[in-house]
Amino acid sequence: MSLTKQLQNFAGTAVAKARDAGLPVDDAQAYYSDRIEPLLIKKISRFIIPFVRRSGVKVLELESGHVLCEMPIKGNVNHIGTMYAGALFTLAEFPGGPLMLATFGMRRFIPIVTALDMEFLKVAKSNVRIELNMSAEQARAIEAETLEHGKAEFVLEGELVNAEGEIVARSLAKYQMRPRRR
Amino acid sequence: MSLTKQLQNFAGTAVAKARDAGLPVDDAQAYYSDRIEPLLIKKISRFIIPFVRRSGVKVLELESGHVLCEMPIKGNVNHIGTMYAGALFTLAEFPGGPLMLATFGMRRFIPIVTALDMEFLKVAKSNVRIELNMSAEQARAIEAETLEHGKAEFVLEGELVNAEGEIVARSLAKYQMRPRRR
Repeated sequence: MSLTKQLQNFAGTAVAKARDAGLPVDDAQAYYSDRIEPLLIKKISRFIIPFVRRSGVKVLELESGHVLCEMPIKGNVNHIGTMYAGALFTLAEFPGGPLMLATFGMRRFIPIVTALDMEFLKVAKSNVRIELNMSAEQARAIEAETLEHGKAEFVLEGELVNAEGEIVARSLAKYQMRPRRR
Repeated sequence: MSLTKQLQNFAGTAVAKARDAGLPVDDAQAYYSDRIEPLLIKKISRFIIPFVRRSGVKVLELESGHVLCEMPIKGNVNHIGTMYAGALFTLAEFPGGPLMLATFGMRRFIPIVTALDMEFLKVAKSNVRIELNMSAEQARAIEAETLEHGKAEFVLEGELVNAEGEIVARSLAKYQMRPRRR
């Protein structure tokens, strides 16, 4: 069973229990969506894709519209001892999934990455972080367009920052959002 | 000691032995550069960067101006069982190094990747290959510009192809060539 399916089942059980206990179901559902799901995604997402897990990247912060991830330099150096370009790419690509799950939930939409442009500005000799943000306005516009037209195109731009706060790389990811097939 | 250094030492020893044995040194040097070095790079290059080694990518063909690499689907799937975008990026990025070592040798120049744009066209459900080629004319132009101006900018375009020969992704890598510091 896929992780999404497992989490959906878990969500269903949690909401049913809340209903049985006489709690307002909408509140229970909202609590689950807003609090429990992002926490699960934050803890679990990096283990889903073996390639990502092997890199050692971690989700440090995750909430609706915001994700912060860190790639360790350990195990990810290139032939000159700085962070390998593929590790920087993975740091730029991977957080988009958790961000969108935390922002749009796991039931309605599927984001597909259609392009990712990396610009390498400086060698990275430390752990590297990326923060991706999506405003509520942008999320609402994507949601509305996906529901109306069956898809929506959008971009997420990221700055990859070393331990000294210097930008070592920039990323521009292009996504297409589609409704999940029932 | 870096691998480059080790190989340079090995090259020096091989050439010295050829000289001692009364062989024409130029021929020995040329043979080493043209035959032995590419073979060593082909076999060894993927082990230099742990991130690349972990992906299981292999150099299938390598000679001056030509490289063919393959990324296994095994161990590199994403959450829907197709090849993870980071594995496709690594397949596009990694071969540039061996190609340039085999084309320009290991002593004179250092290529730096300054940008890499990936376009994802189709999910990949099999091993994926990339072939990168650099014509002798392009190589000579890069060499001349690097020697004259201290650097040269150039691009390498790649098509990532599945087992059925379909293009699953395209890559555009931007490089800067610089003279190696003595």
